Amino acid sequence: MTKTQSAYFKQVPQIAYEGAASTNSYAFKYYNPEEKVGGKTMEEQLRFSVAYWHTLTQDAADPFGAGTAERPWDHLSGMDLAKARVEAAFEFIEKVQAPFFCFHDIDIAPEGSSLRETNQNLDTIVSMIKEYMKTSNTKLLWNTANMFTHPRFVSGAATSSNADVYAHAAAKVKKGLEVGKELGAENYVFWGGREGYETLLNTDMKLEFDNLAKFYHMAIDYAKEINFDPQFLIEPKPKEPTTHQYDFDVATSTSFLYQYGLQDHFKFNIEANHATLAGHTFEHELRTARTSGMLGSVDANQGDTLLGWDTDEFPTDLYSTTLAMYEILKNDGLGRGGLNFDAKIRRGSFKPEDLFHAHIAGMDSFAIGLKVANKMIEDNFFEDIVAERYKTFDSGIGAKIKEGTTSFAELEKHALSMDSIDHASGELERIKARINQYLLRVNEL
Amino acid sequence: MTKTQSAYFKQVPQIAYEGAASTNSYAFKYYNPEEKVGGKTMEEQLRFSVAYWHTLTQDAADPFGAGTAERPWDHLSGMDLAKARVEAAFEFIEKVQAPFFCFHDIDIAPEGSSLRETNQNLDTIVSMIKEYMKTSNTKLLWNTANMFTHPRFVSGAATSSNADVYAHAAAKVKKGLEVGKELGAENYVFWGGREGYETLLNTDMKLEFDNLAKFYHMAIDYAKEINFDPQFLIEPKPKEPTTHQYDFDVATSTSFLYQYGLQDHFKFNIEANHATLAGHTFEHELRTARTSGMLGSVDANQGDTLLGWDTDEFPTDLYSTTLAMYEILKNDGLGRGGLNFDAKIRRGSFKPEDLFHAHIAGMDSFAIGLKVANKMIEDNFFEDIVAERYKTFDSGIGAKIKEGTTSFAELEKHALSMDSIDHASGELERIKARINQYLLRVNEL
Amino acid sequence: MTKTQSAYFKQVPQIAYEGAASTNSYAFKYYNPEEKVGGKTMEEQLRFSVAYWHTLTQDAADPFGAGTAERPWDHLSGMDLAKARVEAAFEFIEKVQAPFFCFHDIDIAPEGSSLRETNQNLDTIVSMIKEYMKTSNTKLLWNTANMFTHPRFVSGAATSSNADVYAHAAAKVKKGLEVGKELGAENYVFWGGREGYETLLNTDMKLEFDNLAKFYHMAIDYAKEINFDPQFLIEPKPKEPTTHQYDFDVATSTSFLYQYGLQDHFKFNIEANHATLAGHTFEHELRTARTSGMLGSVDANQGDTLLGWDTDEFPTDLYSTTLAMYEILKNDGLGRGGLNFDAKIRRGSFKPEDLFHAHIAGMDSFAIGLKVANKMIEDNFFEDIVAERYKTFDSGIGAKIKEGTTSFAELEKHALSMDSIDHASGELERIKARINQYLLRVNEL
Amino acid sequence: MTKTQSAYFKQVPQIAYEGAASTNSYAFKYYNPEEKVGGKTMEEQLRFSVAYWHTLTQDAADPFGAGTAERPWDHLSGMDLAKARVEAAFEFIEKVQAPFFCFHDIDIAPEGSSLRETNQNLDTIVSMIKEYMKTSNTKLLWNTANMFTHPRFVSGAATSSNADVYAHAAAKVKKGLEVGKELGAENYVFWGGREGYETLLNTDMKLEFDNLAKFYHMAIDYAKEINFDPQFLIEPKPKEPTTHQYDFDVATSTSFLYQYGLQDHFKFNIEANHATLAGHTFEHELRTARTSGMLGSVDANQGDTLLGWDTDEFPTDLYSTTLAMYEILKNDGLGRGGLNFDAKIRRGSFKPEDLFHAHIAGMDSFAIGLKVANKMIEDNFFEDIVAERYKTFDSGIGAKIKEGTTSFAELEKHALSMDSIDHASGELERIKARINQYLLRVNEL
Repeated sequence: MTKTQSAYFKQVPQIAYEGAASTNSYAFKYYNPEEKVGGKTMEEQLRFSVAYWHTLTQDAADPFGAGTAERPWDHLSGMDLAKARVEAAFEFIEKVQAPFFCFHDIDIAPEGSSLRETNQNLDTIVSMIKEYMKTSNTKLLWNTANMFTHPRFVSGAATSSNADVYAHAAAKVKKGLEVGKELGAENYVFWGGREGYETLLNTDMKLEFDNLAKFYHMAIDYAKEINFDPQFLIEPKPKEPTTHQYDFDVATSTSFLYQYGLQDHFKFNIEANHATLAGHTFEHELRTARTSGMLGSVDANQGDTLLGWDTDEFPTDLYSTTLAMYEILKNDGLGRGGLNFDAKIRRGSFKPEDLFHAHIAGMDSFAIGLKVANKMIEDNFFEDIVAERYKTFDSGIGAKIKEGTTSFAELEKHALSMDSIDHASGELERIKARINQYLLRVNEL
Repeated sequence: MTKTQSAYFKQVPQIAYEGAASTNSYAFKYYNPEEKVGGKTMEEQLRFSVAYWHTLTQDAADPFGAGTAERPWDHLSGMDLAKARVEAAFEFIEKVQAPFFCFHDIDIAPEGSSLRETNQNLDTIVSMIKEYMKTSNTKLLWNTANMFTHPRFVSGAATSSNADVYAHAAAKVKKGLEVGKELGAENYVFWGGREGYETLLNTDMKLEFDNLAKFYHMAIDYAKEINFDPQFLIEPKPKEPTTHQYDFDVATSTSFLYQYGLQDHFKFNIEANHATLAGHTFEHELRTARTSGMLGSVDANQGDTLLGWDTDEFPTDLYSTTLAMYEILKNDGLGRGGLNFDAKIRRGSFKPEDLFHAHIAGMDSFAIGLKVANKMIEDNFFEDIVAERYKTFDSGIGAKIKEGTTSFAELEKHALSMDSIDHASGELERIKARINQYLLRVNEL
Repeated sequence: MTKTQSAYFKQVPQIAYEGAASTNSYAFKYYNPEEKVGGKTMEEQLRFSVAYWHTLTQDAADPFGAGTAERPWDHLSGMDLAKARVEAAFEFIEKVQAPFFCFHDIDIAPEGSSLRETNQNLDTIVSMIKEYMKTSNTKLLWNTANMFTHPRFVSGAATSSNADVYAHAAAKVKKGLEVGKELGAENYVFWGGREGYETLLNTDMKLEFDNLAKFYHMAIDYAKEINFDPQFLIEPKPKEPTTHQYDFDVATSTSFLYQYGLQDHFKFNIEANHATLAGHTFEHELRTARTSGMLGSVDANQGDTLLGWDTDEFPTDLYSTTLAMYEILKNDGLGRGGLNFDAKIRRGSFKPEDLFHAHIAGMDSFAIGLKVANKMIEDNFFEDIVAERYKTFDSGIGAKIKEGTTSFAELEKHALSMDSIDHASGELERIKARINQYLLRVNEL
Repeated sequence: MTKTQSAYFKQVPQIAYEGAASTNSYAFKYYNPEEKVGGKTMEEQLRFSVAYWHTLTQDAADPFGAGTAERPWDHLSGMDLAKARVEAAFEFIEKVQAPFFCFHDIDIAPEGSSLRETNQNLDTIVSMIKEYMKTSNTKLLWNTANMFTHPRFVSGAATSSNADVYAHAAAKVKKGLEVGKELGAENYVFWGGREGYETLLNTDMKLEFDNLAKFYHMAIDYAKEINFDPQFLIEPKPKEPTTHQYDFDVATSTSFLYQYGLQDHFKFNIEANHATLAGHTFEHELRTARTSGMLGSVDANQGDTLLGWDTDEFPTDLYSTTLAMYEILKNDGLGRGGLNFDAKIRRGSFKPEDLFHAHIAGMDSFAIGLKVANKMIEDNFFEDIVAERYKTFDSGIGAKIKEGTTSFAELEKHALSMDSIDHASGELERIKARINQYLLRVNEL
């Protein structure tokens, strides 16, 4: 199945589906790309993507410790390293059968000593990737510009306090759009890792918002100019590395987009761990975006809600993957978006094999979520609960409320006429027991 | 100074300003109503308001314990109790020299066995209050309807899953607007204590949003109909008592208002402790509302950021009151809004005297904040920091960015031409030391 | 199966085991009391207990709303209410097949106008319960004294700032020990809901610790005196209702016990939601107690880690029940302890039927956890992982470390002699995928 | 005053005391080393220490961004860099008038390619430091071994799953004790940054505890062996970088020490930000240690309680410094410990000047705290509150409780005889207002 001839991961076989009882660590137990669930193949429904940065580039460092990752390309550096990673990337992506990948500019090519050199490096690697894509089924889900690592972004990029940095950021996004067009990217993502503030005490929030909106408008204009039509995505995150990020959560970013007339140009790339850092569940953020017609793509990972930072763990919590897939199926899928594993192996999982185990764990977990959520939808499980609970809005005064054809005067008249109000139990405990039952019967689906 | 003849708090003298060195517990050390700061008297700048619920109605219970409050009206019940509280309220408000008060409908009058009876109870007490207001300087900052305590609101009010409850809620707000008009309220507040969800698993979020928006539109229509023109205020809070509240924070509510075309009809009533529960500082929420032109009023209290629930403590943190007053002064004051002490004495501070100590503590703390913030503004303290930090936007490419007259192509050209970028330090540590210095010199102002 | 003739829950049938495919809401899908797992019946392994307070006494109020619970005894009050609840309790407990129950003194009998009257009320109800126990299999897992609800406990009980309150608390525990003896309780629990502080600013922590230790010593002495030998249990909780509770978590309480020479007299009653409020997982607290030989009993519930207070939800998270049962099985069971559902239905689940659904959900969830954990232990799943990971301690310098027969000098010599150190991956992602596989195959066990 | 001739910070003058009205950024407004407060000079009371790692070694990187720090030694590397930093360190420490400094081994000298080479590097730099100390008043408060940065410590050091790593860690601490002796360190600190777990799923907690205890015993033995008698200190921290650290907080570590018979050999080094990460206030941790006679030293910084990780900010919150100094004064000072600025400039404060501003801010903040706390103690402010609040323990049944000469029977008799219990209010709001008053009058002290 793997066409790529490189062999950075010789010890790992092609990953294939073997079923729920398999004891082979290098096999899918649930993800069966060709299997149809809900009218489409799993591959079409899930649109998995490998994150270049976590899988090819990061070294498993943390704020208190150096990198522990052992990688077959550790002896290389510079452009040699970048090229080796491209080879390894295609081998890896094909071995785990992910149809997509994603990257930041500096994940794939090193920064040069000038912007011009950086762009040249990028061009070289982009050409190489394009060549590989010709003989591979691997497609680019999205690309983006890293505008947070370099010291120049210390005070932000499109919201920097420094106009020169703003210009530099614009140049990077311009190049990113050109690269996205070249490689046929489905989406272009903005993650505002430094767009926000360390402290309000030295920050002109209004100017920064204004500048950010202008930046987005210029990006839209430039994409049109070059006949590139990606879905633009904003990725909310509330805090870390700085104290506050402007794209705190879906609702906050929606507010910004509306205030600056940008709401028709963007959808959201929603990350599970960013949701929990903002105090929400993953499904809350998905629902909020879906309700506003702005659910675009997903950064599939999970956090540790007892920890206060972004752990970006591979998603294995089946409650979360099931409820996420429910939202995605109700959204009629992710359209041009996908499930991108913005997830990193733990610092203690430093072997190359762990990259495979982690992706298998995540892909199986979402495949399980897909199957369970699809069964619930076939059974109208949540739909029946909701229909019953809100049935008073189907007729009488309720229908008038829904249609917007009543008034406070009429509602008061109704209220004064009632002797008592009947309530139905929300039955949360019964619902949760039923969800467990659905989950534990997945092997029968 | 006190005109009211009732004497529920005989042991407590009229509270007056005595200055920073006073050792009298029943005196202001900083709040001097007639003193001018920033061109207005402190009374005009601060517009303090007593919260009827915390001061007259609550009994200092907590989820694990019965009420501890010892009040001179504890022997009364029903309408007798309600009337005694009105008398005590005016005595209290005048003794602490607050120009305003606020209430929920059921704070001032008990619910009857029917909505009709409840309204009659309200009418009786509203008449009594109106009578008291004739001979008092006390004014009504805002009133609202309690749509969270009664079991009927178990699933919300304007977002209830039950149309009858929605109608009941509408009748209450209709009455609330009538009461507000009768008493000359400056504002009408919506706090959506039950507007949200306990669980997404049985919730139709889209329908609930739609219904909420219709509810607000009907409220606006009805106010117009009766020629009442209050400033409508939404009070954001993220969670508690339920899992999620739709008015999570200022940005979230702004998003809702824009999506339903309601943005011109509302401002925000911002509570410090609700801000911290949402993961923000108080000043962040004030700034966010100010930036959107929607800073309306303030629920002045403070939370304990090491605890995960709304403690509603009286505000004594001078860092917080100073930065809050800075935002308010930069907003050119609160307009028709005010500083309402939505704050409760601790369960262990159960004596009537504690109500006075607490208000004195809070009023002095905001008076200090006002004086320090005003001095900083006179000195252009923050303005100079910001002007220096963003100076690259004053000319050249920065000015073009600000004016919106550039493009990605031009910005790239600029970026490619730069050799390096100069950065200025954010100097947070120096700024914080300066703020301490400003604070500790307040006695010289 | 139910012997009790009362019929408060006529609409609910006797709950019985029907298997994983059952669609009957009033049936166990996994909990099969007679089924043997790990050498004992499920009933023996799980030792389920119904919490009198949440099931019979509480009304589903929350800090912002009145009780919503609809109960067949709502028309009663005083001792009539107390007696009705006893009847209902035995009906309920037998219908859900829980072998145990637990109570605070004032759950079962109302406080009188004096301590003497309170004790008389207690005596009446205790006699009634004792009579019921004669013809029922229901046993008392533990009882305790409520020393947090009444205003007298505003500043604590055994750590009150008031010696009279301390004496009152002592009298209550004395009575509690007598009641426990009378009803054959297996354990006696201390939950220090008010033992801690609202603020350090007025607190003599040292005196409070000293007094608490003396209180415990007197309790031990008194139990001996009356020939009652329960397992004494401390239930850690970090905060809520007050700012800090002295029994913050297992380790904190262990520190206290050791410092006052009490470590041999106590074990811990560990609650899942209290663990997460302290920043720990449930299994962390269980492991910490197990490691110290102090795992006594469990308050089986779960919290919402995105909320900052004790939600006391019924346990349905199968990851949590599985890991908890692993710790319990490795502890060789809970001895005289049990799994007490210190869990309450949501405020929106206010029907009597919800009490059954909730217990079924919880009992099935722990039954699943038991089966999965037992299978893992049979397979040496975790044991093999640990053995492999720590194998360097089985021989050479590692064995010397383990035996305590080496020194820094020898270790340095060893360190200087090493060229490099081989590390094995922690493989967390592979382990998590395997746990999912174990879980999803529970229906095959 | 500065004797050191190096001039890495030429642009910064010697920092001296100028008083509260000074507008000189490079002057102390409150810290006046020679001024006597509470019977000792400020220098003696505060025992400030500069942290080598944050001030000399770190580059202001964060998990999402490269270092921004601009340092005069940026062009150097290896041992040249190490030597330059020693020169700069002494210049810096003398310029800010801190009497002490602290370091980890690898802060002062780079790791070599072998442990032997690392030790040689250390020896070279230690000699150089010793030479500098001869002509400087600067003393070593404590040193420690960095056992968290290098990949070998991926699974801990003294609690590693690998015996070879354990041996390596032992060798490092052995060397650390030798270095400490050589430089006359007052204390030796253990910070268990990697002693804990990433996940319980692969962890043998009991073995790790046993090994850790043995490690400490060997350290004590070795220090004795070389006639070195530092105060051993444990520095609690709850989490980060890993999921759980064994030294979670003071109480947790106390529990460990008692369980392994180590309680007489250790005191605690308490960090403000670690306290808040554990859910406690700084003063809570100080009080807990003080109550157990184990308050040893302080890592003076502050966190942002709205963020979930260790921000290690310079301490400027005067409430916190005042309450901390109160605990320290009540402890009769820190003995051989001190106030070590384990605090880092923000990533946005990247200029060398910011290091000075930050230390001045921190030193002034603690000087203010010292003056205010000392005044409160002179006034018996807290002591009077406590004496009044607990007065029932001074006579009668209360005195018997305190003396341990009563029993449950006697206490019950007392309880039955009481008609009612008088409670005094805790008056938290009045206390807080008074604290503000104390604080704002510091310029009069």
